Amino acid sequence: MVTGTLLPDSILPVVVTTGEPAGIGPELMLMLAAQGDLPANAVAIGDPDMLRQRAAALGLNVKLVECSPGEKPRGANCLPVWPVTLKAPATPGVLNPANADYVLATLALAVDACQRGLVAAMVTAPLHKGVIIEGGYPGFTGHTEWLRDACGVDEVVMMLATDAALHASASGWQGSGDLRVALVTTHLPLRKVADAITFERVTRISRLLAADLQGQFGIAQPRIAVCGLNPHAGEEGHLGREELDIIIPALDALRAEGMDILGPLPADTLFTPRHLAGVDAVLAMYHDQGLAVLKYAGFGQAANITLGLPLVRTSVDHGTALDLAGKGVADPGSLKVAIDLARRLAAQRLSATA
Amino acid sequence: MVTGTLLPDSILPVVVTTGEPAGIGPELMLMLAAQGDLPANAVAIGDPDMLRQRAAALGLNVKLVECSPGEKPRGANCLPVWPVTLKAPATPGVLNPANADYVLATLALAVDACQRGLVAAMVTAPLHKGVIIEGGYPGFTGHTEWLRDACGVDEVVMMLATDAALHASASGWQGSGDLRVALVTTHLPLRKVADAITFERVTRISRLLAADLQGQFGIAQPRIAVCGLNPHAGEEGHLGREELDIIIPALDALRAEGMDILGPLPADTLFTPRHLAGVDAVLAMYHDQGLAVLKYAGFGQAANITLGLPLVRTSVDHGTALDLAGKGVADPGSLKVAIDLARRLAAQRLSATA
Repeated sequence: MVTGTLLPDSILPVVVTTGEPAGIGPELMLMLAAQGDLPANAVAIGDPDMLRQRAAALGLNVKLVECSPGEKPRGANCLPVWPVTLKAPATPGVLNPANADYVLATLALAVDACQRGLVAAMVTAPLHKGVIIEGGYPGFTGHTEWLRDACGVDEVVMMLATDAALHASASGWQGSGDLRVALVTTHLPLRKVADAITFERVTRISRLLAADLQGQFGIAQPRIAVCGLNPHAGEEGHLGREELDIIIPALDALRAEGMDILGPLPADTLFTPRHLAGVDAVLAMYHDQGLAVLKYAGFGQAANITLGLPLVRTSVDHGTALDLAGKGVADPGSLKVAIDLARRLAAQRLSATA
Repeated sequence: MVTGTLLPDSILPVVVTTGEPAGIGPELMLMLAAQGDLPANAVAIGDPDMLRQRAAALGLNVKLVECSPGEKPRGANCLPVWPVTLKAPATPGVLNPANADYVLATLALAVDACQRGLVAAMVTAPLHKGVIIEGGYPGFTGHTEWLRDACGVDEVVMMLATDAALHASASGWQGSGDLRVALVTTHLPLRKVADAITFERVTRISRLLAADLQGQFGIAQPRIAVCGLNPHAGEEGHLGREELDIIIPALDALRAEGMDILGPLPADTLFTPRHLAGVDAVLAMYHDQGLAVLKYAGFGQAANITLGLPLVRTSVDHGTALDLAGKGVADPGSLKVAIDLARRLAAQRLSATA
C-alpha cells in the first residue's frame, strides 16, 4: 500500500540511533553496512569505538568514519558516524545503567538534527526501558513518549507497517502488498483496555492517523478500517456494548467530518482480502488485536512509525535481544524495513512541501 | 501441519447439516456439489424440497436424492440428502423463528448418526443464534454449547485451523503449511476476559487440546505454544500480572505432567516463522488475539473444530450471511475446508482404533 519513491541518496541523511549498546542495535546497523544494504545517505549515531570493536569482533568489513552534519564521507563499506561517547564500556548482553545518558544523548542529537533540517528522518534501533529507568529516569516509558515530549506535542500514534513488496524474495510472500496497523491503546494491561476506549480517544487517534496518512504517506483521502473492541464487534450488544455506546458514535462523528471510515468491524474477519481491499490502514483497539496479524503478515519484519510528530521517525519492531547480542545472529530485516520506510516518508514530505 | 490421509470415499459418510434455511448454508453445499468439490461419501441433512428449489433458482446442476443411512445413491452430480422437513417455507435472507425446530432437528439427526456409528463425522453449516432463541430456545448460545450438552460432556474447546496447503492454487499462499489456534475463552466481552483466565481453566483447556491433538490429529507428543494475556506477555509484570500469577504457574503444572508447552509468549511475535516452527497448535487467551491472524493466514477460509466431543465435528468459520443468501455469490471455501478436515480427522480416529 506504500506509494511514492525512496529519498534520493544525494540529499539529506537519514540518521539511525544505534540504541542500547549492550543490545543488538549496533550490530544490526553494522550488518546492513557490511552487506551493502544501507542507502548512501544513511548515518549512524553512536560511540565510534564501540561500533569499531563490535565490527571487529564479528568480522564485519565496515569502515566507520566519524563526521558531523554536512560532511559526507564516501567509499566502499564506509559508514558515517555522528559520535556520542559511551559513559562506561559496553559488553554485549550486559546492561549498564551508567549508559542511560548515552542512549538518550543519541536520541537528542537525532531530534535536534531533524528539527534543524539537517536530516530527512530518524530511525531508532531498540533501547532497554528498564536500564534507562534504573539509570536515573524513573518516568521513562519508551522511545515514543520521549519523542512526544521532546517535540512538545500532546499525543502521538503508534503504527506498524510491513512492506511485503520490499521483501518478496526473502519471505516468499506473494500477497497483495503492505499492511498498516495503528493502535488506539498501546502498552496497557488487557484488563484496562476497555475503560481506555473513549469517544474522545477514538476520534483523536483517528484524526491523527488520517492526517499523517495524508501528510507522510501522500494518500489524499485515506480509507481507515476500524476494529471493534469485542469479539464479532460486539454482535449488536450481545458480546459487549462499547461498539454501540462509544465506537459507533465516534466513527459517525468522524464520517460527519468527511473522513472515510469503515467499521467497527469484527477484528477476526477484517484482516482478509475481501475487507482489506482499498483500505489504507487498520485502526485496532489494542496491541495484540492488531499486531499479531501485522507481524505474521510481515514474517516478523515490520517497522514502527510514530505519527503525530513534526519529524519522520521509524523504528524496528523488536527489542534489544540481549541473549543474541554480540553473536552476529540477529536478523537486521526490521531495521532495513524501518530505514527504507523512513526514506519513503521523508521523500513524501519533501514532495508535499516542494 | 495436518498429517494423515483423507477418509476413503467407500466407507462411512460425512454428514453436513445445511444450517439456517434463510442463510447461505444450503447453497454453499449445493455449489460444492455442482462444482464436483464434494467427496463421494458426503451427505447433506436438510429439507429436500428447499434444497431443490434453491438449486433451481441458482441454476445449479445437482440431483438431490433422498435416502436414509445405509443407502448410497450414485451418479453424476448426485447429492444424497437425509430429509428433515421445514416447519415453514424458507425465503433467502428472511429469518423465520418457526424453523428453529427444523435447524435443531438437523443437528440432532447428525449427532444421533455419529453416536450410532452410522457416519464418520459431522460438519455444520451456519445457523443464526438469534432466531433459534426467538423460536423458543432462550438458553441457546450456539452450535458448540448445544453439541457439548447433546453429547453430555462438561467442557469443549474451540479450535480453528486453516489448511493452506489444500488451497495453495486458490489463495496464492506459499507459506509453511497449516495453522491451528485454540482459545481459552471464546465469546466474551473483552472487559470480562482477564477475570476468566484462571489456573483451572488454562490447565483444563490445555489438557483437552493436547488430548485431541493426539486422538484426532495423530500427533504423539503435541507441542503447544501459549500466548500471554497482556501485551508483551506482561513484560515481567510491568504490563499486567496475570502471566506471573496465573499463566506461568498453570503452564509449569502442565509441564510437570509431561506436556510439551512453550510460553507464555507475546502474542504479537509468536505468530512468526521462528516461533511457529515445530509448534502443533497455538493456544490464545481470547478470541481476537488468536483468530485475526488465523483468518488472515487462511485468507478467510478456515474451519472450526470442536475438541472434547466423543465425535468428529467441524464447521465453517463464518455466519449465515443473510445479505448474500440466495444469490449464489457466497464463497464455499470454508465449507470445503471443513469437510476435508472432517474426513482427515475421521480417518485418523479410524486408524487409531484399528
